[in-house]
Amino acid sequence: MKITKKFLSYGLIALLVMSPFISYASSEVEHAASSGHSDPIAPVLFGLIIILLAAKVGGELFEKMNQPAVLGELIFGIMIGNLALLSGGAFSFSYLVEAEAIDIMARLGVMILLFQVGLESNIKDMMKVGISSFLVAIVGVVVPMVLGYYVSSWIIPEAGFNAHLFIGATLTATSVGITARVLKDLDKLRTPEAKIILGAAVIDDVLGLIILSIVSGIVISGTVSATSIVTISLTSVVFLIGSILIGLKAAPLIGKWVSGMKVEGMKIVTAFLFLFVMSYMADLMGLATIVGAFAAGLVLDDVSFKNKKEHHIEVLVKPLYCIFVPIFFVLMGIQVKLDAFLDPKIIIIALGITAVSIIGKQACGLGVKCPGASKLTVGIGMISRGEVGLIFAGIGKELGVLDDSLFGAIVIMVILTTLVTPPLLKWSIARKDKAVESV
Amino acid sequence: MKITKKFLSYGLIALLVMSPFISYASSEVEHAASSGHSDPIAPVLFGLIIILLAAKVGGELFEKMNQPAVLGELIFGIMIGNLALLSGGAFSFSYLVEAEAIDIMARLGVMILLFQVGLESNIKDMMKVGISSFLVAIVGVVVPMVLGYYVSSWIIPEAGFNAHLFIGATLTATSVGITARVLKDLDKLRTPEAKIILGAAVIDDVLGLIILSIVSGIVISGTVSATSIVTISLTSVVFLIGSILIGLKAAPLIGKWVSGMKVEGMKIVTAFLFLFVMSYMADLMGLATIVGAFAAGLVLDDVSFKNKKEHHIEVLVKPLYCIFVPIFFVLMGIQVKLDAFLDPKIIIIALGITAVSIIGKQACGLGVKCPGASKLTVGIGMISRGEVGLIFAGIGKELGVLDDSLFGAIVIMVILTTLVTPPLLKWSIARKDKAVESV
Repeated sequence: MKITKKFLSYGLIALLVMSPFISYASSEVEHAASSGHSDPIAPVLFGLIIILLAAKVGGELFEKMNQPAVLGELIFGIMIGNLALLSGGAFSFSYLVEAEAIDIMARLGVMILLFQVGLESNIKDMMKVGISSFLVAIVGVVVPMVLGYYVSSWIIPEAGFNAHLFIGATLTATSVGITARVLKDLDKLRTPEAKIILGAAVIDDVLGLIILSIVSGIVISGTVSATSIVTISLTSVVFLIGSILIGLKAAPLIGKWVSGMKVEGMKIVTAFLFLFVMSYMADLMGLATIVGAFAAGLVLDDVSFKNKKEHHIEVLVKPLYCIFVPIFFVLMGIQVKLDAFLDPKIIIIALGITAVSIIGKQACGLGVKCPGASKLTVGIGMISRGEVGLIFAGIGKELGVLDDSLFGAIVIMVILTTLVTPPLLKWSIARKDKAVESV
Repeated sequence: MKITKKFLSYGLIALLVMSPFISYASSEVEHAASSGHSDPIAPVLFGLIIILLAAKVGGELFEKMNQPAVLGELIFGIMIGNLALLSGGAFSFSYLVEAEAIDIMARLGVMILLFQVGLESNIKDMMKVGISSFLVAIVGVVVPMVLGYYVSSWIIPEAGFNAHLFIGATLTATSVGITARVLKDLDKLRTPEAKIILGAAVIDDVLGLIILSIVSGIVISGTVSATSIVTISLTSVVFLIGSILIGLKAAPLIGKWVSGMKVEGMKIVTAFLFLFVMSYMADLMGLATIVGAFAAGLVLDDVSFKNKKEHHIEVLVKPLYCIFVPIFFVLMGIQVKLDAFLDPKIIIIALGITAVSIIGKQACGLGVKCPGASKLTVGIGMISRGEVGLIFAGIGKELGVLDDSLFGAIVIMVILTTLVTPPLLKWSIARKDKAVESV
């Protein structure tokens, strides 16, 4: 209770302090935009100023309360996104979400996050927990899918077979972004639980995208051929394993080639070219770009750039991480529309699938075959649906399977699972650390 | 001749090596875009891959030939931008220029460049050459303006008073980007010539924008009031001096405040918030964002962030510099349309105003009152018109004063002054270094 009060008072003070600036600048932006002589980057700069201020004020408040900074970024994002609602329509920031350049920077942010996670991971260590990761991923896909289908057909039987199927599919994908960020903030990326979760999330992403392709196929054609299921599945697996194998061979050669270069900044530019090419390739194969970003980080981890004059690659990536990653999390918060919560029917559906999505992923603990790894932490680490859930919901809406209220319910599920993950994860890790200490 | 041959063969090899990849990826992008399931960042990633590859291959080639890397970035940019012409219409990259996100990243790049130049400059050192900078700036604005007006009315008398006035105005603004980059590449930013040029370019930018506002006023209303001239002039000068004075007071307080923070990456995020706020403020005042970026760098140079755990601010900015600055220069190259050179009339106008713009800025040497500083180097350093010239030309076209061929001629002038600056500057600096050695 004390923390909630403290948070509320801090948040209100921050909003009060920020609002005159926001109000003044907001009207100035409109003025500058209408006068036409302004640099096109001006509204983007304004958006970046608000987003980075929110990220750092929110992050700092939550760190002071011993909560992960990412939660502060999300909640300050929600406050900014709903300023129109909170201020009685006096201010609005909807154009922050609509600005293409800021959206692209947020996507770059989540890529850099997964790249950094890949850099800090190690393929050999991940192999050791490979079987656990695989079992965790399979359980984490099948159980929520089945539960989601039945809960949907129980609460809203009128929505029909396709909608139940799609809601089930939406519950399969794990969003590794939030969990990875919390584990990184707590400096726990090298624990067995972290390796299992990250490995499972990648396999999960591949499995989820296969299911999405198959479900979309059923919805569009009314049927799906065995050939296309096999093709989709094979492409994904071959890409991921193939790119890692080729990357492991290519990386030392690239490192050697770069070391002979005279021009400045070759190391960071080569690393980012690697990141961009791998992410782009993943997208071409129909996978999420973040799968490619993670693979790029995994592979580059083992590169020994010969250029000793420059800093270590993780030192070079960090400033880009600090600027771009918070943009992604604040923007995720901004996209939350609190007015959706005013409809009681949406709340019932949302709470139902949220409960199922949390319980469903707890079955993942059954897949953990690693002695000493906490089944609870792994189950909790798999809860967050984040941006992958939002992508699924968006496609469902596009295909006409999900109406606005079902889409709203899924968005709420994504938010709740995302909000619930950091504190639960923090609690379960502290619990295990305590248990280890008392032994 | 040997260098030209070597460059041509290197360039051809690079284009040949790149073309199958470009061709394949280009068709894939269209495919992915049409299938609709692709991440919106995919085409941006593709653009960034091509731009960064061109920047580093071009930069490396020119460094190997002892030329500034920036010239390689520009020329490889021109090759990419005219691939449709060079390949007989087989490939085209026009969408690279049209992508909003890449354009914004390029603008961010030039801001980061001026911010970095500001960080490496020192206000006290700049004060010492202040009188020279001011005289250089005044001469560099008045002489090219008058010469431009007369050359224009001599070659194309039919274009009319407004066009002559606008062409004259276009010749006033110095683009500090190219010169700063060359001086930085040569490690000559701390010489008196560099300080005079950078100081003069900033004053020039302010003077140029005042002239642009006045000339636009004359074109729009047919007349301009003394009050508005005074208002525009005062705003600019007050902003620049005021923001530097306030910044100098505020920076240590901000540094102290940041040092008490727990959250990660506060230093780089605070520096970028400072950069964004100052650039945004400059834009609100009707100045170029890069003026604010330069002022932000100047001010932050003297901040002593207390957070000793993190790297020095210049180390933190460098990775962002290495990724974003080349995007600006490659994109400037991409925007050059070689087909404009096919019209002989455009070539005559272009060569006429180019000659005047180069000769006009040589008068700047007369303003150098600093013993030991090379008048020739200062005059050459002021030649480049770069992005400021392009902004002027764009506004002239918007107002209907410049038709397509005059606009084309100004673009060619901007390109030629930009291409000619790096090798001339390099030559004059080497000449002075030699003269000093022989004494």
